[in-house]
Amino acid sequence: MHGYSQNSDDILARLRRIEGQIRGLQRMIEEDRYCIDVLTQISSATKSLQSVATGMLDDHVRHCVRDAIGQGESAADEKVDEALEVIHRLIKR
Amino acid sequence: MHGYSQNSDDILARLRRIEGQIRGLQRMIEEDRYCIDVLTQISSATKSLQSVATGMLDDHVRHCVRDAIGQGESAADEKVDEALEVIHRLIKR
Amino acid sequence: MHGYSQNSDDILARLRRIEGQIRGLQRMIEEDRYCIDVLTQISSATKSLQSVATGMLDDHVRHCVRDAIGQGESAADEKVDEALEVIHRLIKR
Amino acid sequence: MHGYSQNSDDILARLRRIEGQIRGLQRMIEEDRYCIDVLTQISSATKSLQSVATGMLDDHVRHCVRDAIGQGESAADEKVDEALEVIHRLIKR
Repeated sequence: MHGYSQNSDDILARLRRIEGQIRGLQRMIEEDRYCIDVLTQISSATKSLQSVATGMLDDHVRHCVRDAIGQGESAADEKVDEALEVIHRLIKR
Repeated sequence: MHGYSQNSDDILARLRRIEGQIRGLQRMIEEDRYCIDVLTQISSATKSLQSVATGMLDDHVRHCVRDAIGQGESAADEKVDEALEVIHRLIKR
Repeated sequence: MHGYSQNSDDILARLRRIEGQIRGLQRMIEEDRYCIDVLTQISSATKSLQSVATGMLDDHVRHCVRDAIGQGESAADEKVDEALEVIHRLIKR
Repeated sequence: MHGYSQNSDDILARLRRIEGQIRGLQRMIEEDRYCIDVLTQISSATKSLQSVATGMLDDHVRHCVRDAIGQGESAADEKVDEALEVIHRLIKR
């Protein structure tokens, strides 16, 4: 069981929508659509992905990281470190 | 003809790879994989998308915007404005 | 004369405000203020800086880059390239 | 005592350096320096600020948030929520 397990249907639905956006982008390129319209669509897909990421991060910190700390697990240090590492990556892009 | 027309095969190949990453993400959720591994993969897909975006932006500025300005087109103002608008969106995310 | 010359008073005023925010941050650290309040203030100063950057970028593209292209200057290539390079840096942070 | 208390000298030194960068930026504007050089300097100051922010965030999560959770404090929920909120702000810029 992971932090996101309760929300996995919602996450899957969002990822399928993003897959649709990426396929839509391929069609736009094949139809030689205007650059700015393609860029607007890429920007929208990126935002959707980012939103899935922050949602999962929240679940992860609220459940996995928190549980590890609460149980004084020796793994708590490692869990905090790997969460911070992924947060840095999201901040720096 | 658009700024990216010469590179459309390369862009399509990259978008197909990103579509594969998104489908891989769906599988990871279905298999209940560890949050941090999913987040690492999302971060990688986001970076790939961002890289397609900056590549297209470069083509657009180097060709479409530049041509409009060089030909003194009355549309040059509008072209510069819409390029800056999309750049702001990419900067702010 | 640069793209921002007309706005330099406004830019200076904004930079002085940002300098004030940075000094405010030093006081917060000296007074051992709560981390989250410090982080909120850093986030606000970063946003102010980013906003000066996008304003100057707009002036630069609208004037310097555009003029170079319009006059068919041999330097136009270089001007477009260096603008795109700085845009990439702003996007990637 | 806060998460960053041990590092406050280092943080202060970095903030003073950033204050120097902001004053350097004001001089650049007064001397009408080239836009791209100013933007490069802004980009560098932003990166320095961002780096202070992620350092403080790490200290905060490793100490304040972790302590609250470990002690089963009723305030732990609130601490996790406010940390995630500031993380979202840093991610979205």
